[in-house]
Amino acid sequence: MLHLKSSTDSRWLRQVDAGLDEVLIDHAHCEKKAAGTALNLIFHCVEHIELCREMTAIVNEELEHFHLVIELLNRRGVRFRRLKPSQYGRRLNDLVRKQEPHRAVDRLLVAGLIEARSCERFQALAEHVPDEELRTFYRGLFESEARHHATYTRLAMHFAPEREVLRRLDELAEAEAAIIGHGEDLPRMHS
Amino acid sequence: MLHLKSSTDSRWLRQVDAGLDEVLIDHAHCEKKAAGTALNLIFHCVEHIELCREMTAIVNEELEHFHLVIELLNRRGVRFRRLKPSQYGRRLNDLVRKQEPHRAVDRLLVAGLIEARSCERFQALAEHVPDEELRTFYRGLFESEARHHATYTRLAMHFAPEREVLRRLDELAEAEAAIIGHGEDLPRMHS
Repeated sequence: MLHLKSSTDSRWLRQVDAGLDEVLIDHAHCEKKAAGTALNLIFHCVEHIELCREMTAIVNEELEHFHLVIELLNRRGVRFRRLKPSQYGRRLNDLVRKQEPHRAVDRLLVAGLIEARSCERFQALAEHVPDEELRTFYRGLFESEARHHATYTRLAMHFAPEREVLRRLDELAEAEAAIIGHGEDLPRMHS
Repeated sequence: MLHLKSSTDSRWLRQVDAGLDEVLIDHAHCEKKAAGTALNLIFHCVEHIELCREMTAIVNEELEHFHLVIELLNRRGVRFRRLKPSQYGRRLNDLVRKQEPHRAVDRLLVAGLIEARSCERFQALAEHVPDEELRTFYRGLFESEARHHATYTRLAMHFAPEREVLRRLDELAEAEAAIIGHGEDLPRMHS
């Protein structure tokens, strides 16, 4: 359902264990970025009112999650601050083709794959972290990220035939698995 | 309450009469831009949970307005499309000082002044246009834009003393009046 080509491995979970606070701060940044991405893509759906409503719901939900993370940070006494972002998003966005309608298709599919990976990582975290508050927190975010992935993929199908979208999604998912599998040194949601 | 230094004149209302559809399309773009501005400014309020909630409400409300305009365009058979934007927003943003905390103060005050001017123009439109659907529509948007202006101004006061913020607001409002008074050829919300 998430169209991912790999599962999160123990390397990342060790990074989380060693730098949980930083992963939490990065998570807040990711939610805000996800809201921004949805907002930037909203013009793609103006001719499909129902989809437009779904995109708006994504903006609202990502912002709601942003607040949940900020509140969690406050409760844990972790100060929100700027962080050097991971290269994951930039690397994926580098794969977006320049020519329309390919550009629209790729931007939507990349946004959808980031949601899918976040979803998969929330699930991994919910099973891995010992802290019960955090387990509940991550379980609460899981479902909406999966739904966002589905919305983006469906929206892409307004810009190219279904078969072509699914072929490209397969291609991008292979690239995504390679990028996330390569990993990064700093502890981040997508390191 | 809106801190504006001028009122909309008949020159702009004549532009609206001659290019109402374009003004409506531009309005949709403005609502989306306003949501983006609020989203970009949300990091300024993470340390003030209550204000952060208000900023989130602004994002949601601007998007809600965006939908209302899109639905209005659909009912009137006006096709949403890209438009060359007016120079108003860019000219105001050129006034933002580069150094923090001045930068934060100015970005918030400029965002607030754009809300104030929109509010003032909605009021002018509600009194001017003959179409009853449009009059009701513009009256419905008025109150929230005034509230957004107040939120941005209050938020700026977390980055500088009240007296300094009000002095700078006065200065920026003078510049805003000059920019909007200068006008532009294309019919836009802020031409």
